[in-house]
Amino acid sequence: MSNPFFKNHGPLKISKIVKFLNLNINNLNKDTEIKDIKDLFSSSETDITFLHSKKYKDVAKKTKASFCLTSEALKNELPNNCKAIVVDNVLVSTSKITSLFYPDSINDDFDETAININDTKFKDEVIFGKNVLVGNNISIGLNCKIGHNTIIEKNVIIGDNCSIGSNNIIRNTLIKNNVKILDNCVIGKHGFGFFPINNNNFRYPHIGMVLIEDNCEIGCGATIDRGSMSNTIIGKNTYLDNQIHIAHNVKIGENSIIAGQVGIAGSSVIGNNVKIGGQAGISGHLKIGNNVEIGGGSGVIRDISDNTKVMGYPAKNIREFLRNNK
Amino acid sequence: MSNPFFKNHGPLKISKIVKFLNLNINNLNKDTEIKDIKDLFSSSETDITFLHSKKYKDVAKKTKASFCLTSEALKNELPNNCKAIVVDNVLVSTSKITSLFYPDSINDDFDETAININDTKFKDEVIFGKNVLVGNNISIGLNCKIGHNTIIEKNVIIGDNCSIGSNNIIRNTLIKNNVKILDNCVIGKHGFGFFPINNNNFRYPHIGMVLIEDNCEIGCGATIDRGSMSNTIIGKNTYLDNQIHIAHNVKIGENSIIAGQVGIAGSSVIGNNVKIGGQAGISGHLKIGNNVEIGGGSGVIRDISDNTKVMGYPAKNIREFLRNNK
Amino acid sequence: MSNPFFKNHGPLKISKIVKFLNLNINNLNKDTEIKDIKDLFSSSETDITFLHSKKYKDVAKKTKASFCLTSEALKNELPNNCKAIVVDNVLVSTSKITSLFYPDSINDDFDETAININDTKFKDEVIFGKNVLVGNNISIGLNCKIGHNTIIEKNVIIGDNCSIGSNNIIRNTLIKNNVKILDNCVIGKHGFGFFPINNNNFRYPHIGMVLIEDNCEIGCGATIDRGSMSNTIIGKNTYLDNQIHIAHNVKIGENSIIAGQVGIAGSSVIGNNVKIGGQAGISGHLKIGNNVEIGGGSGVIRDISDNTKVMGYPAKNIREFLRNNK
Repeated sequence: MSNPFFKNHGPLKISKIVKFLNLNINNLNKDTEIKDIKDLFSSSETDITFLHSKKYKDVAKKTKASFCLTSEALKNELPNNCKAIVVDNVLVSTSKITSLFYPDSINDDFDETAININDTKFKDEVIFGKNVLVGNNISIGLNCKIGHNTIIEKNVIIGDNCSIGSNNIIRNTLIKNNVKILDNCVIGKHGFGFFPINNNNFRYPHIGMVLIEDNCEIGCGATIDRGSMSNTIIGKNTYLDNQIHIAHNVKIGENSIIAGQVGIAGSSVIGNNVKIGGQAGISGHLKIGNNVEIGGGSGVIRDISDNTKVMGYPAKNIREFLRNNK
Repeated sequence: MSNPFFKNHGPLKISKIVKFLNLNINNLNKDTEIKDIKDLFSSSETDITFLHSKKYKDVAKKTKASFCLTSEALKNELPNNCKAIVVDNVLVSTSKITSLFYPDSINDDFDETAININDTKFKDEVIFGKNVLVGNNISIGLNCKIGHNTIIEKNVIIGDNCSIGSNNIIRNTLIKNNVKILDNCVIGKHGFGFFPINNNNFRYPHIGMVLIEDNCEIGCGATIDRGSMSNTIIGKNTYLDNQIHIAHNVKIGENSIIAGQVGIAGSSVIGNNVKIGGQAGISGHLKIGNNVEIGGGSGVIRDISDNTKVMGYPAKNIREFLRNNK
Repeated sequence: MSNPFFKNHGPLKISKIVKFLNLNINNLNKDTEIKDIKDLFSSSETDITFLHSKKYKDVAKKTKASFCLTSEALKNELPNNCKAIVVDNVLVSTSKITSLFYPDSINDDFDETAININDTKFKDEVIFGKNVLVGNNISIGLNCKIGHNTIIEKNVIIGDNCSIGSNNIIRNTLIKNNVKILDNCVIGKHGFGFFPINNNNFRYPHIGMVLIEDNCEIGCGATIDRGSMSNTIIGKNTYLDNQIHIAHNVKIGENSIIAGQVGIAGSSVIGNNVKIGGQAGISGHLKIGNNVEIGGGSGVIRDISDNTKVMGYPAKNIREFLRNNK
């Protein structure tokens, strides 16, 4: 599902893009218009793409993009249709150009557009508490409740029959029907993604959103960060207990049950019917299969295949864990 | 201590109860009035009870209840005074009937009865900050303070000399004297209790409360869930550090000290003079004795007897843990 | 850096100090004025100090303080210029006298001085959201933003170009330039420090502050406690992810990266360029060197030297951990 929230400020002239990176490149048709920045696979001939690792050499050879941010070492991996733009740090340059197309995605300051719900059209459509604020670009379905002091910041779509508690802060989030969000959650902020640079880290843009499917319940004190390039997703009828942290780009399947204080690091994918015990942690970029059970307190640092029960740190077969720890 | 907060909507006619479960049962005196739903042991002849496991066969034989929700397999374990009502899923049916007696216990939406404290009798009785809200059925003792943006939702009793900080949300909670609650806590919401059903989990009612005894201190960002059938209890002079999660039905003794980010899962019972180090986790349904010390980061998955020091995951004798991990 | 926030109510007459401890001491010049309470090393002849452990015998012999709270067993370790004041519990008495000099440091009730920012001089100097409150003794630099419902309680200095999100509560904190604080944080409350006394614990004063250096980012839901005798410090360009707990007196160096749900216990010192994975915990009073990497989920219970990578519980060499846990 594409993200309805961040406006693409393209097309941009290639001359503007190159200038933004402080580069001097000859042989460019300065007026060529670029519509978007995408990965090697998704790009069309009106896009700019990026190649930062030889891991992607094979995909690079087939890219349809007309331009590619890349390094001196990789510039010859591109096909004839794609002109290399050589930069010192490919990912930093990619981030800069992404912010040029999506300037609204880089800044997560408080939403100045938020006003009291009493001064909006939602006044007569929603049951709401005291001091509720709503920002720009909000849609709220039928029969919804929004609790005291909750701030629906800009870019939020809420379906029907949703119950949002008090003291929540939500932005850049699509909430389907029959969803319950308890109290004190922060949903839709950018993730913990940046390039470490001495004395002045450089944040990369987060153009993804949070997607919460039908019938979910989100416990008190959750933090769910939106995706950077893709979306963060909580699948249908998945329940989260209190004080859970879901990092950017995480995707959780349907009918899963996640107990208190669990943390899931960036870009991990969790299957359907998964049960995760309290305080368990899951490292980033992992794949947890369907019907997996993870014991409380576990630290998961490797993929887990379907229908497996694990426990421990690092997590292993639960029977082995219990046998070794009588 | 019985819960003063949830009104029992009984007595209900047995015909109404049976109909609510979509059952067709002959030989019932339809006008028989049932006053309450209770466990096998506590029931009197005006109550309905439930039997879902053969573990409780012996208690079942002595129950005084006139009716019992149970399964085909267990229906013959009941005494003559107690008529079996056979259902497919005993616990789900028990939950449904509990909600029928206590309809206010199932819904944890934000409290619509909460209004600004300036418009209540507490205006002249309490020292309070800006934007403080109070709901129905609240009592507040002498010499109390309530900080900015705090919401005292319905069903809260606060004793004397209590200091409640800012941004807290409290409901269904009895707070004794000299208690301090810092900031950003959510206290008294329902626990993480439901029957997993594909595409649409079924929440069971929480008719318990949170009881916080004299001289306790609750740190910032705590979540303390109320009990389902019994209460969640924090004993006298017990101190909780920041970001602690206490699940439903947990009972903590007196003079205990619980460091930051600890989580205690549902229905565990912690003794007096217990010290729990930071980030430790305690599984559900455990019994931790008096004078126990649990090292930081431990994962406790078994009962711990009095006067024991443990550490590790799973937690074991602390000297053994340190010897094995030099 | 000395703390600009807690006013020293000295000088106090020695007779007042002695009386406050319910002591009867002869041979005292009752009118002698004492300016401050300091440790053995820092005291000058106008100060009172304390000696509670024989560990400090050597420092004690050189103290310049005129008076020293100490025990019967240690009273003969003091030089001639320093008169022993013998008490039953040295640390409790020290705390009591510290509160006498710094009475504002003992009470962390909500800040009654906080008023709506619209009624302050900051109205025209800061970009702010709805329902923002500010207390006494606040300074805010150029080009700052403060989000909805945030409470800047008393004793806060904020530098230039800072972005403070919504629902935060901050007190006793010095924030330098270009700092971002996201949402739902509580910064500057007292730490989890008290003397356990049956039925009525005794809190000791926290006269330190929180110091957040240039270019830091603090994630959602952080709790950062102020120091007791020294300060809690987050070094330049250090980034904290969501749901992190930093206890009192912790000092974190520059350019460090701390992932979600990490907890650092009291008085630990973390170096520069340190990376800490999600959910890791660090015990109190430890020294973590520069360029250290700590794997996610680790439990650190010993010092770690520079340039070391560790993982596990307890944390050890990361290669050893992974080799032993294939």
